[in-house]
Amino acid sequence: MTDEATAFAPGHVTAFFAPYPDDDPAVAGSRGAGVTLSDGVEVTVRPAAGADDPTVLLDGEAVEVAAVEGVLDALAPHVGGTGTGADGDADARVAAVEIRTDLPVGAGFGVSGGAALGTALAANDAFDLARSENELVRVAHAAEVAAGTGLGDVVAQFRGGLPIRLEPGAPGHGAFDGLPARPRVEYVTFGELSTAEVLGGDLDPVRAAGEAALTRLRRTPSLPELLAAAREFADDAGLLVPEVAEAIEAAEAEGSPASMAMLGRTAFALGTGLSDAGYDATACAVHPTGASLRPVETE
Amino acid sequence: MTDEATAFAPGHVTAFFAPYPDDDPAVAGSRGAGVTLSDGVEVTVRPAAGADDPTVLLDGEAVEVAAVEGVLDALAPHVGGTGTGADGDADARVAAVEIRTDLPVGAGFGVSGGAALGTALAANDAFDLARSENELVRVAHAAEVAAGTGLGDVVAQFRGGLPIRLEPGAPGHGAFDGLPARPRVEYVTFGELSTAEVLGGDLDPVRAAGEAALTRLRRTPSLPELLAAAREFADDAGLLVPEVAEAIEAAEAEGSPASMAMLGRTAFALGTGLSDAGYDATACAVHPTGASLRPVETE
Repeated sequence: MTDEATAFAPGHVTAFFAPYPDDDPAVAGSRGAGVTLSDGVEVTVRPAAGADDPTVLLDGEAVEVAAVEGVLDALAPHVGGTGTGADGDADARVAAVEIRTDLPVGAGFGVSGGAALGTALAANDAFDLARSENELVRVAHAAEVAAGTGLGDVVAQFRGGLPIRLEPGAPGHGAFDGLPARPRVEYVTFGELSTAEVLGGDLDPVRAAGEAALTRLRRTPSLPELLAAAREFADDAGLLVPEVAEAIEAAEAEGSPASMAMLGRTAFALGTGLSDAGYDATACAVHPTGASLRPVETE
Repeated sequence: MTDEATAFAPGHVTAFFAPYPDDDPAVAGSRGAGVTLSDGVEVTVRPAAGADDPTVLLDGEAVEVAAVEGVLDALAPHVGGTGTGADGDADARVAAVEIRTDLPVGAGFGVSGGAALGTALAANDAFDLARSENELVRVAHAAEVAAGTGLGDVVAQFRGGLPIRLEPGAPGHGAFDGLPARPRVEYVTFGELSTAEVLGGDLDPVRAAGEAALTRLRRTPSLPELLAAAREFADDAGLLVPEVAEAIEAAEAEGSPASMAMLGRTAFALGTGLSDAGYDATACAVHPTGASLRPVETE
């Protein structure tokens, strides 16, 4: 029995959303829909013997990820703190967190949400915390909301597939449906877009456009309708940026429904439209499941 | 674009349950907990050109699976019926259903529930029905309940992992939590047990034992507690059969928590206890996800 654990969370591209902030971060969230990706975030947590404070590495570099720190704080004194463990060993309960991802960071793929969720799942296992999945998702969602880096990624990343967020918030508040489809997805990224900046601005037009898109998708829950609703949302919410708009038009000209990742300078498309149009696009699949622990090798 | 589609549903072993029948089959269900398995049920649906009635094959043999027929009826006239399709072709909408599984049938693995759920997911895709995942799960759950072959398998098989059913019923009624663990699972089967017979008997002692087990697990949501609660349930509900009790004791003597699959003459255990005790046990993993369409090969 090792006390190290690894969890995987799929990436999540939001197609459209209607934000609902709240003072309670478990109640805050967004309604909307998106695509979870086979490309994602892997997180390993182990006790950091001898360390005074938790360490967080992203692809080998020391980083500060507010949502991950929030998760460790919420699980303290069992994980993040320097309390005395059951065995009387003062530093056996400090976590060393290693995050690995091939996804672009800050470009609308839910890397911070996936890192928070993976940390919660892995820490629970590594430190034998006996929390349920709903409790761990709640901790990660609340940490991500408090950090201002996302409103709906964590719960979508836990669910997997093509999640439709019917009601905002953590388990116990939120509610889901999903589209039963498993298309090939391509994406191309032109750089970062600050989620915190958009979420700090006027949310009324975004919310109105997001609700209109959700109503449309619930009337016809199909893949073409998801992309059409997403495209309309991007225009109506005023969030489309020029280089992404250009890539979307190019993919559509090749017959691929496409839209913008909310929030990132990223275009995503179904099928092969982006690469057919000459973009250096990355291809992946819809992730069939949500985030989970990596099984321990048994044989 | 092919009009054939394949879906996979994991097997599901119920550890304990509290049944809640209802006249509305979407409201009926059970609370409880269990284990979804990497061994499962694969279902392919395609239009049966020229056929008057749907055909259902299980591992190549023509069978009648009431829950599958219920799903086809519920999706009629689009799938099960002989109505005229949009293209005016009268028999293009009749479904041919092929079910394949390595799981024992009638032994507590949720094969009928998995077949119903797989049929719903695959038929939706093959016949372009544009139903959402919640709608398809609801159709499969209601068909399984109406057939009397299960109360909680379908919703658990859609969720995956180690599902805790907090509230009974189809999406919109039911609610879930889960255990964040991915252990190795072994099982050994001694034959069939009629779910319909047990569900048709006095449910009060079963419900009382199931609620006690659920309260216990929610207090400490861990893997050892799941098996301990399951073991207590099997005794208290009066459902344990002698050959299964013997296998459970043998696995426990080898250090593996074990219990009985509800409802089947099946023992399941974590780790290697059944094979260590000399049983010809089958090993598998917890299925990390729920049922989903097989992705179409794209390259």
